[in-house]
Amino acid sequence: MPSESFEVRAVGRVESPLKEMESAPRQGDEGAPRVWIEFDPDVLDALVGVQPGDRVVILSWLDRANREVLTVHPRGDASRPPAGVFATRSQHRPNPIGLHPVEVLEIEGQRIKVSGLEALDGTPVIDVKPVLEGEISER
Amino acid sequence: MPSESFEVRAVGRVESPLKEMESAPRQGDEGAPRVWIEFDPDVLDALVGVQPGDRVVILSWLDRANREVLTVHPRGDASRPPAGVFATRSQHRPNPIGLHPVEVLEIEGQRIKVSGLEALDGTPVIDVKPVLEGEISER
Repeated sequence: MPSESFEVRAVGRVESPLKEMESAPRQGDEGAPRVWIEFDPDVLDALVGVQPGDRVVILSWLDRANREVLTVHPRGDASRPPAGVFATRSQHRPNPIGLHPVEVLEIEGQRIKVSGLEALDGTPVIDVKPVLEGEISER
Repeated sequence: MPSESFEVRAVGRVESPLKEMESAPRQGDEGAPRVWIEFDPDVLDALVGVQPGDRVVILSWLDRANREVLTVHPRGDASRPPAGVFATRSQHRPNPIGLHPVEVLEIEGQRIKVSGLEALDGTPVIDVKPVLEGEISER
């Protein structure tokens, strides 16, 4: 039985100095750079009210991930027993969506600059959500 | 210029007593019921290592949302000025992905029971991610 599927669209794209998977830290708090996100012109109204200082979650589509992978060694450590990808934050998973809690630093035209985000240059952004009070704490 | 798009697949589905949008609380901490999530047989390996007591984020595809909406009155309150959907948690947005921080309560075959989740019965689930230490606090 084929699973039901839906179309997710890019609403923007990450502009990052990280060009290759090998150079990307595993999580945003492990040395990820500040990056700009450039949004598509047709969604700019959706950014109204987003301000510097806001804590938001960026959702990305990790387009270089392998969607066939169901189990991995956590953090790529072969000495650890394999775990299901739903028990890890591996980018390799049926739907390679990244969750990046960041702070909005600057807004300039159709771009916003955010704190440490570990996605590669050109990674599609698919959503931005404010953090609800008490939901995601500072690291 | 058409935006780039990708195919996201359902990996499971919410089984909830909430059948209509009018009855769903706006956020999971506002009286949402415990629900079962039934996973597709072909992704069960991805659940290995997920255990009762785990804090996870369920990603859903809010298939009854309006994807054309770019601005809303926060929490449906017409007395508040409209905000861009990226500044709100409105279900109506270009990619209607829901983020639901929950606790895993029980695992039974290809189903897991989780604490308060505000999605309607039948809502597709598209991902499950463990909460990283310090990332999402208890409410």
